[in-house]
Amino acid sequence: METHFQKELQELKESLLMMAALVEEAISDAVQSLVKRDSDLAQKTFEEEDKINDMELAIDDSCLKLLALRHPVAADLRFITSAMKIVTDLERMGDQAVNIAERSISLNQEPQLKPYLDIPKMAEITQSMIKDVLDAFVNRDSKLARSVCERDDLVDGLNDQVFRELLTYMMSDPTTITRAVHLMIICRCLERIADHATNIAEDVIFMIDALVIKHHADAKEEQERINNP
Amino acid sequence: METHFQKELQELKESLLMMAALVEEAISDAVQSLVKRDSDLAQKTFEEEDKINDMELAIDDSCLKLLALRHPVAADLRFITSAMKIVTDLERMGDQAVNIAERSISLNQEPQLKPYLDIPKMAEITQSMIKDVLDAFVNRDSKLARSVCERDDLVDGLNDQVFRELLTYMMSDPTTITRAVHLMIICRCLERIADHATNIAEDVIFMIDALVIKHHADAKEEQERINNP
Repeated sequence: METHFQKELQELKESLLMMAALVEEAISDAVQSLVKRDSDLAQKTFEEEDKINDMELAIDDSCLKLLALRHPVAADLRFITSAMKIVTDLERMGDQAVNIAERSISLNQEPQLKPYLDIPKMAEITQSMIKDVLDAFVNRDSKLARSVCERDDLVDGLNDQVFRELLTYMMSDPTTITRAVHLMIICRCLERIADHATNIAEDVIFMIDALVIKHHADAKEEQERINNP
Repeated sequence: METHFQKELQELKESLLMMAALVEEAISDAVQSLVKRDSDLAQKTFEEEDKINDMELAIDDSCLKLLALRHPVAADLRFITSAMKIVTDLERMGDQAVNIAERSISLNQEPQLKPYLDIPKMAEITQSMIKDVLDAFVNRDSKLARSVCERDDLVDGLNDQVFRELLTYMMSDPTTITRAVHLMIICRCLERIADHATNIAEDVIFMIDALVIKHHADAKEEQERINNP
């Protein structure tokens, strides 16, 4: 028989999944507003961000109540404190979606600099990272969480590629600089969203496997940095 | 007489302050490596980040133990869960310091593009924000936390100023673009560190006053954005 506490945990999981879905939507609308040159979609992102902010506060509050009233220990305790960190990450992803939406509005007022191919691809990967990392969290699936960490490299790779391409535009024609900088910032926002998803994935893996892969990964990256400066 | 739990909370506060001091140092070394064109200082930042990562894990672990064994409620509960969120922010500030250090190393290999005046000023403000927000947290001083939120505008203002200045360099001389982009990214890293400090400040104010100023501030910013697009 399901206890009251188990029911509360189940509700917490559902709220987290709903919040994540809303974040995905905010990102999708922000990027689609750029791709379709439709600033109304950017407006939708602003509204979604409001709801994301409300959900952050509501979920944080539920977690505090669970901690205060149910005295969870071990896996349940770690699950609830992780949930509190995750909502912070999700809320900040919402902020990034708003940044993208703002830049899209500016860019939609100028002639399009280049076909937008890599940016929607980056957005698609980051959205899949958000969906999967939340599924990994609620289902305690460390394998899925690891696949999220791996996808971060794809996003970083695309970001570097667009960055170099935009630098070429800027160097050959200074009139493109303002637009290119807006696009660079949009890419960095997507990269930051992917970083947030990766941070969550690392927490999930930690929670499940009690492994500190994050700092190992940092050390590995550091080593690669020394090898390929 | 001080209880064992009070002593543990005191130790937690001291660890947080130590971690914050280390983050300040990492930022200072990264920015000084740029200003003094001394890449050895950048190397110091990498070492400090290692220690910051270790402290994050250790403090997170202490907090979990306190939650599991002491069943804190009300203010103490909120204090401990906030501490867990704060160490995440501090760790990510450390990541930003590393990003700055990496860009400094690249820039130190090229002729200096311009005198570095605003960047050290930005760094100084962000460091003061980190120090004060942690003091505000451990001493439950919401007035000090509010002053941290206000300083975020100074950092954003300086960032915008440097950004426009660098755009001018790029437009008038394309050979400056690569260096200007490195400098733009350094400024954005400092701005992100200031954002993390502001996020902590908002949590501290929330913790103390149970006020949701964060989303009010967002709404205000949104309104200003509409008024001054």
